Formats: sequence, structure tokens, C-alpha cells
Amino acid sequence: MQLLLRDNGAVTSLSLDQHRAAVEALLAPLSARRAIETISLSASRIAGAPDAYRQRTLAHDVVSPTDLPPFDNSQMDGYAVRAAELSGASSDATVRLRVDPQINAGDTISAIEPGTAAPIMTGAPLPAGADAIVPIERAIPDHFRSTSVTDTNADGDEALTVEFASAPDHDEFVRRRGSDVAQGELLLAAGAALGPAQLGVIAASGLTSIDVLRRIRVLLIATGHEIREPGTALQPGQIYDSNSAVLSQALIDAGCTVVAWPCRSDDAADLLHIVEKGAPTADLVITVGGVSAGAREVVRDALGPLGVEFSHVAMQPGGPQGLGLVEAAGHPSGIPVVTFPGNPVSALVSFEMFVRPVLRRLAGFARDEREVLRLPLAESVDSPVGKHQVRRASIGTDGRVRLVGGPSSHLLHSYAASTALVHLPVGLGHADAGDPVDVWRIDD
Amino acid sequence: MQLLLRDNGAVTSLSLDQHRAAVEALLAPLSARRAIETISLSASRIAGAPDAYRQRTLAHDVVSPTDLPPFDNSQMDGYAVRAAELSGASSDATVRLRVDPQINAGDTISAIEPGTAAPIMTGAPLPAGADAIVPIERAIPDHFRSTSVTDTNADGDEALTVEFASAPDHDEFVRRRGSDVAQGELLLAAGAALGPAQLGVIAASGLTSIDVLRRIRVLLIATGHEIREPGTALQPGQIYDSNSAVLSQALIDAGCTVVAWPCRSDDAADLLHIVEKGAPTADLVITVGGVSAGAREVVRDALGPLGVEFSHVAMQPGGPQGLGLVEAAGHPSGIPVVTFPGNPVSALVSFEMFVRPVLRRLAGFARDEREVLRLPLAESVDSPVGKHQVRRASIGTDGRVRLVGGPSSHLLHSYAASTALVHLPVGLGHADAGDPVDVWRIDD
Repeated sequence: MQLLLRDNGAVTSLSLDQHRAAVEALLAPLSARRAIETISLSASRIAGAPDAYRQRTLAHDVVSPTDLPPFDNSQMDGYAVRAAELSGASSDATVRLRVDPQINAGDTISAIEPGTAAPIMTGAPLPAGADAIVPIERAIPDHFRSTSVTDTNADGDEALTVEFASAPDHDEFVRRRGSDVAQGELLLAAGAALGPAQLGVIAASGLTSIDVLRRIRVLLIATGHEIREPGTALQPGQIYDSNSAVLSQALIDAGCTVVAWPCRSDDAADLLHIVEKGAPTADLVITVGGVSAGAREVVRDALGPLGVEFSHVAMQPGGPQGLGLVEAAGHPSGIPVVTFPGNPVSALVSFEMFVRPVLRRLAGFARDEREVLRLPLAESVDSPVGKHQVRRASIGTDGRVRLVGGPSSHLLHSYAASTALVHLPVGLGHADAGDPVDVWRIDD
Repeated sequence: MQLLLRDNGAVTSLSLDQHRAAVEALLAPLSARRAIETISLSASRIAGAPDAYRQRTLAHDVVSPTDLPPFDNSQMDGYAVRAAELSGASSDATVRLRVDPQINAGDTISAIEPGTAAPIMTGAPLPAGADAIVPIERAIPDHFRSTSVTDTNADGDEALTVEFASAPDHDEFVRRRGSDVAQGELLLAAGAALGPAQLGVIAASGLTSIDVLRRIRVLLIATGHEIREPGTALQPGQIYDSNSAVLSQALIDAGCTVVAWPCRSDDAADLLHIVEKGAPTADLVITVGGVSAGAREVVRDALGPLGVEFSHVAMQPGGPQGLGLVEAAGHPSGIPVVTFPGNPVSALVSFEMFVRPVLRRLAGFARDEREVLRLPLAESVDSPVGKHQVRRASIGTDGRVRLVGGPSSHLLHSYAASTALVHLPVGLGHADAGDPVDVWRIDD
């Protein structure tokens, strides 16, 4: 009887931290090799290409090409005055000034004569001569008049006047040119993530394009001759490929671009063909499945001889892991390859634990955005004492964390019903209800 | 002298909670009016249209069209056996079984005869007759043999055999058909957010399209005859329009689609033209600026007569707010309009405080994703006791929160350098270094 079985020999055992460090070291060179892209910036592009700025960080420091604000302007609706002229004003001795023409936002920069006050709107340019703004509610009258009104001023001329019963400080309610950022100062630092305020300050400075780090390009290869494209007919023993969807979205969420190219074959040549065709335009290859002990395990068969090393990490799920640099066109030092086990839960937990944090840093982010909590368990739990177990869970309104489904790595439905991952570290064989555990929120 | 000044009369003063409730009430009907979209799902679409599933939630409950897993299969690399045949096995009395042909993932469902054990790979279909898996490391030998080996069995026939020194439990390491989710059970509930695991379990079930809530469509109108498109030449007194960029990205981040259509004019007819043209394909209008006390305030002039009410909220920045329902084609009950003040910091804080949480809920999310912390101040701070002040800040590695820039609403550069918003509520006039304050992370 011909048996096609593999003796994998001794498999290296690694701690979670050892494998995490190995993945980091493998991917670290991607940081230096990252290309830079110039992308255009406009509100219409933000609206029209909503993915353009998601998870993007600046490649360089950006210096402000202009003062912000670009001219002295008013912080309030009120009167632009010379502060010194009101220095003696009090409720007993009000100071009366003649009213100048109103200054609106968008008006060109004007000037006020001594003895006058200019009604001025928020954001309108401070007139030459003025050095303080008195808010409208501190003037007498405390509102702008809506009709033509004349009054008699000190010279006997008919003119509109306004009174003040208190003195403003010099520069009060004046926004000085360059007080937010001055021309030539740092507008945004390299690595700044492009959110609303960052895009806004770029727009405010008048810049219409910026240099960002190119996204990490991932060639994602879900393997297995049992996997089929969802929607096609299944034969007994076949399953739909969920790993391509799971990891494509997880990679997109982490700021990558993805080419998902499944290998629905157990022939090493088929996998090597995908790597050969896909590697030149990728920065990283991630495979899923094909690392079992069977006779024809496509990832082991294809990539083991090329230098990918397989190991067993003290983690559950996600024990069987592999990584290496593989020779490929366009990659003089080889392309990094990370191999995940084939169960969707194992693959996604592997991604969360080993790859996602590194991709976030490579995308330029200073921190992972996973919210880490320490919460009490709602129920007792057992965990293999020699392994770091990652369980799926939900956080109750009582602040306790409830496990969803069992520890088994095929329970993708349970994962999809979860809002958190619970970490039961090596050395912990049992925890009681109420015991605190580390929890990662995954429902952001 | 002709003065074109407005007497706005008494302005309604509102608490933060009052205005928040008013915005919620205004937008609540959008929930019932939401259209549903059917979107296709595939890994190639995830990779090719990375925005497609971002901030999406299911419109209906989705029932599983199939059992998951679709057939009984092995959780381990090992041997498929009849548990009863090994019931007496011990290290003193091993049980020897004849080895069947290997079963790989993707093989059709086979059967085993009594007295035999089938080498089986993780995910491979359990053969008929078998009811337990013995992991390879518990078999003797504890690895699969890689060559054709024959042995002599009890009957004297030459055949490969394997020994077992312990008995498995019934169903041990067997993943039963439907054990993750059974056909007809709830696969995902209405409102489920579409992340990696949710898209994965949909793919695993074979579904290739899903019904999601249509995104809220926002007509965003930044106003002011002083604002110009970034990159164009500025005249003195003019500024670049940053609000369109700021709020477009903020709305995109909240799951909306945006049409950004600035009104660079102080003529009410121009704004009304934009509303008339844009409203039929929008669910919500947001205006920015044009609510000051000037003579020609385009938002007040255009929308006040149509029923938008303006008020002053006890918040800093972001005091001047407005809202209302405005008659528009395609909106039998009127289209909701929310008006923000024109300073970019005021506008973005207004969005964060009043609109974003409502949009998140309308998008189907059960909770806001803003991480709320309570952290000690790194320095003392004064705050207007009658207002809820929102300051921009960063969270230090020491866990203390440091204010970035002053309270003024023109400091967009400071906002862009911040990672958090600090809340100084009504009633708090001063806080000392070390005092705890509520903090929202904004660097996700």
C-alpha cells in the first residue's frame, strides 16, 4: 500500500514573543524600502475617493508655506479699536467713538482713524491702527444697529457713535497672523496620520498635494485543494474559501493593499506560479493553510525548499507558523513570506498577534489602535497552561467579558459574533469568574 | 452713513445636552427613511474596492444557508478511529489497528472498516464509521511515515499498522457538521458591522451578496465670501477653505458619503441654489460659517426664513449652532439642516459633539468607537465656568494629558498636532495639574 505521508521531523517550538520578534525582524527592512507617493488633496477628492487618505501617514515633515492665520483678524463679532483710546473707560466715564464702516470676513485690509471704532465680524481682517477687539456685547449699545442711524458726535457732526464702559487689553480678541503656525514652521511632522484636522490644516496652508508612504502591498494566498470560491457548487469535502475575505479585509483595515490570489490546488508548482507572478508587485506574501502534516502540503512543499522555516508557537489557536525570505523577481534580498495555519480563526488570530501590529508601525503609526482593557471574566475558564490562548468574547454592559464559542479554531461564526479577544497567557491554567484578564477590543 | 448691520435680537441659549437632544431628534427620522443597498461580496471586491465594506452594517438578520462546517471533519492531524475499539487501550495493553488510506482536506467523504484507523489531516472529512480523532502525537509511532512500509497484522497479512496506548473520548477532536452555525440559524444579526470575521463567515456560508444600510448622504456647504479653493491665488483678507476638507474627511470617517459644495459668496440666493440642486440626492445638509452677526450672513439670510433656528450653546468652541427642517425637492417632510460656526476648530468640535455620535448610530453601530479615558492633567487649566470647554491635547507616555495650543477656535494646526479632546464641563472653572478629566482619543 502506497502511503503519501510526511515525517516532518522535529518542529522548532517558539514562544509567542520569539515568533513575534522573528516576524518583526523579517518585516523591518520594508520600512527602509518603502516608496513614497505624492497624492493630491482637495475636498472633492476626499469626497470622491474616500479610501485615498484612510490609514495614510506623511512621508516627510511638511513646512508651512504660509502664516496661519494669513493676516491679523478678529476673534469676535465686535468693534476694532485702539486699546489706548479706551484705557480710561468705565461705567462712570464711558468713552464714545465714531463708528467706521463695517469690516466683513473677506474684505481687504482697511484702516481706522484715531477716535473711531470699526464694527468687525469674526474672521475679518483687523484694520491698520486697531490693536484690540471689543466684543459686541460689551459695547453700548450691545448689538449692531440694523438701519441707518445718525448721531451727533463731539464735533457736532452727524455720525453714528458707540460707547465703551471698559478697556480692552492690547491684542484682546485679536488673532495675530502666524499665531497658529508661522510660515517656515513645521506644519505636520513625518508620520502624521491624515485625519480631518491634518487634511484641514494642509488645505488651510494652500497645499494641494502631499507625500505619503506607499501602502504595503500584500500578495495573499489562501491555499487548499478543498477551497472553492463562494457561490460556486461544492462537492462533498469541499468548503468555501473564507480566508481570502477575512484576511483581505483585515489587511485593508491595517492600511495595506491586497491582491488575493487563492491556490486551490495541492501542487507546489501552482503555488510557486502565483508567487512568481505576484511577487514583483508585492512587498509581502502571506499564505494561509498548507502547513499540515499531510503528504502534499502546498505551502511546505513549495516554500520549505526555498527557505521558509516552519515552527510551532505556544499559542492557541495559531500554533503552526512559518516565515522566511524567498527569492523573487524584483526583490534582490528576497520577498518576506509569512505563513499562517488554514483555519480562519487561527489565521485571523495569527494576523492580530504577529502581523497587524508590525503593519501598523510600517504604515507610520506610532501606536496600535486596538483598545486594550483589563476586565473581569463573567465565567470561569480553563486554558492550556503551556500556551497563550486567545479566546473570542463580548464585553457585557456590566463590564464583564463573556466568552463566545469554544476555543476551537473553526468557530468563525463565534468570532463574527465577538467584540473582543481575551488573552489567557502561558502559565494560566484556570481563571475564575471575576478574575481580570487582558482584553483587546475588535469592534472598532 | 449706510451701515449694514444686523440686530439678531435675543438668541436662544441652550445647554450642550439640550442642543445634542435637538440634533438627535432632528436626525432620528433618517433612521426610518434609510434605503437598503445590496452589495456584492468577494475577496477580489474587498481588495479592489477597499471602501466598499468600511463602516457598513447589515440591514437585516442573515440566516445561514448552510451548516458550518458543512461536514464532520478532523480538528487535528491524526487518525480517524472508532472510539469504542480503543476503549481498553493503555500503555500496558496497546491496541493495534490497520492503517487505511490517508484522508486529505478536499477528499470526498470515505468510510473506515472495523479494526482500521485512517490517517486524517486537519479539515479533512471524517470517514463514515469513525467517531473520534487521535492526534498523531498520541499514536505509535507518533509521526506519519513517509515511505511505503508494510507490516504483518494479526491475520498475518502484510499491512501497515498503528498502535494506540490510550482511548479517545467519543467525538474527541471531531468538528461536527453545523457546530459553528447550523443551516437556518442566525448567521449575522441586523446591525452587525462588516469586519474581517463577519465578511469571512458570509463567504464561508457561500453567500455572495448582502443587504446593508445605504450610507447617509451629506451635502456639505462651507460658506464665506472670504474662502478660496486651496492652490488658487489669495487676495488680502481671503483664506483657503479648510472646512470642506476637515468635514468631508470627518463625515467619510463616520461612514457617510459627501458632496462638498462650498458657497464662496455672501448672497443668500447662491446658497439656496446649492441647497436646491444638492438636496434631492442628500439626506442631510451641513453648513459651516455664515452665522455671525454681520449684515450679510449667508446661512442666516438663506435658511433663517426657511425655518432654521439659530441658538447659542454653552460650549467653547462651537457656541453658535443652528438646525431645522428645510423644504426641498425629494423631501416631503423637509431635509434636516445643521449649521456649524465657521472656524474650523469650532466646526470640527461641533461635529464631534453633536453630529458624529448620531451618524454612527444611524449607520447601525451600537456604540461610538471613540475611546473615552479619564486621565490626570499635566498642567493646571482655567475654563469658563458657564461653558463646556473642549480643549485639544496629547496624551503623554506618563499617562498625563497635555493641552496643545490655546482655547481659541482658529488653532487648527494645534488640533492637527493633538491626539485627544479634553472636556472641561460646565461648573468647572479651574483644574489643577493631576486632576482627572474626561478625554476622548481622536488618533484612531
